[in-house]
Amino acid sequence: MKIKLAENYGFCFGVKRAIKIAEENSNSATYGPLIHNSKEIQRLNTDFNVALSENLADFQTGDKAVIRTHGIPKNELSELYARNVDVIDATCPYVTKPQQICEEMSEAGYDIVIFGDDSHPEIKGVKSYATYGAHVVTSVAELEKLHLKERIAVVAQTTRKVENYLEICNYLIPRYKEVRVFNTICNATFENQDAVRKLAQEADVMIVIGGMNSSNTKQLQSIAYEEQKIDSYHIEGADDLDESWFEGKELCGISAGASTPDWIIQQVVDGIKAMTK
Amino acid sequence: MKIKLAENYGFCFGVKRAIKIAEENSNSATYGPLIHNSKEIQRLNTDFNVALSENLADFQTGDKAVIRTHGIPKNELSELYARNVDVIDATCPYVTKPQQICEEMSEAGYDIVIFGDDSHPEIKGVKSYATYGAHVVTSVAELEKLHLKERIAVVAQTTRKVENYLEICNYLIPRYKEVRVFNTICNATFENQDAVRKLAQEADVMIVIGGMNSSNTKQLQSIAYEEQKIDSYHIEGADDLDESWFEGKELCGISAGASTPDWIIQQVVDGIKAMTK
Repeated sequence: MKIKLAENYGFCFGVKRAIKIAEENSNSATYGPLIHNSKEIQRLNTDFNVALSENLADFQTGDKAVIRTHGIPKNELSELYARNVDVIDATCPYVTKPQQICEEMSEAGYDIVIFGDDSHPEIKGVKSYATYGAHVVTSVAELEKLHLKERIAVVAQTTRKVENYLEICNYLIPRYKEVRVFNTICNATFENQDAVRKLAQEADVMIVIGGMNSSNTKQLQSIAYEEQKIDSYHIEGADDLDESWFEGKELCGISAGASTPDWIIQQVVDGIKAMTK
Repeated sequence: MKIKLAENYGFCFGVKRAIKIAEENSNSATYGPLIHNSKEIQRLNTDFNVALSENLADFQTGDKAVIRTHGIPKNELSELYARNVDVIDATCPYVTKPQQICEEMSEAGYDIVIFGDDSHPEIKGVKSYATYGAHVVTSVAELEKLHLKERIAVVAQTTRKVENYLEICNYLIPRYKEVRVFNTICNATFENQDAVRKLAQEADVMIVIGGMNSSNTKQLQSIAYEEQKIDSYHIEGADDLDESWFEGKELCGISAGASTPDWIIQQVVDGIKAMTK
């Protein structure tokens, strides 16, 4: 039978890029987990000798340090450079962008508001680039307590919902002279969902790969099954495949959650091919 | 009896300022109506010989041209200067601001969106400052037809409602990389309303002065009467006063619509004083 991958699926652009960078830099260590997927981190360690260190002090002159997709605080990056560590930056470009914006806007005299989670590595990094500090908020209620300057620059954590970002902006716009809104939200999740919707138009069976507890994988499967009314199955890997699912079917569509590495997806594709020869 | 004026009433800051400028510049002419109040324009003509000309060609070397509160298009201003006309700028500073923003943002490479009425003198002027053009819209429907650059600067006509301005911003923010929102809305109308609300707390009778067809005057009166439950009367001038309104009252509050000149308000104050001696 024919197999077709969704136009967007699985790891986002930034995660794919980071893994490629790690694979190209054997005998290194990432400072903090490269991505939020322990199996994949284990694979990079086994296959490419890319270790994981949570401790900045572990990196010494000549060591290779791979910077995680979420980025790290500016002072820690400077410290790595100062120690003549060989820094390999796998920060997602969509995260580098709000870092740059924070730095430029802070130095241009804007007060910085970051819509995101103060304890998330991405936001710790982004905030650190605001030369004169930044306010991290998750709600309008938190904004109300702040005293801000007349000119404000706003950025959002890449994974936030745009509807919630607008609530923040709508609070600020009437109250301040200038609100410079940077759309730093990444559409990867929505792109995966849109791609499943599209693929379900032509496929007659759909396999969605991802952890059973993965919320975004469940969402992809429900789009195929409940919304698009197509036979679809949520699996963790090739071992879960069942030959009967493909009987009388012509085109099998494949998608995967944001935490599913390509190698697991490839095993599933190979499994379906072998099963339906 | 005691008489107390609202903290904000009648002409807004920009109109008051323009009239003062006109009074200080006798033997001049305004290019277009200085403000939207014909009685006041007539008074300036009679008392200060400030004429009104709708025709740019009327202004010659040495003539004094007073620029209206709404501002005029940039090329017309340049033409007046080029003819060595003595230009006296009574443009409201709250209108000069969006003019400057349009010019700066246009030259900095931003696409300019103006939320306002394309046919209004203020907006004709503001738009003319966008070196590389601007899009004037009154609704999201109009925005949807536009192809804009990734970086957008937005300004609003000074008299627009902020709720409607947010609709424009909420359309743009998720769709473009940077939306630089300038809050150019003037709060004068709301300030007059808030001031009536406050004054009604202490006054026991309220006089609101303005044309019988003036919407904002009616609003002020309804705030006093319907919302704050205080005896209040909407009049056009001192001739409409009735002695019985003030019997047994201690403090008379005074407010006036945005098109009511101070001299009419003063006549009313004098009338009440004479009536309640």
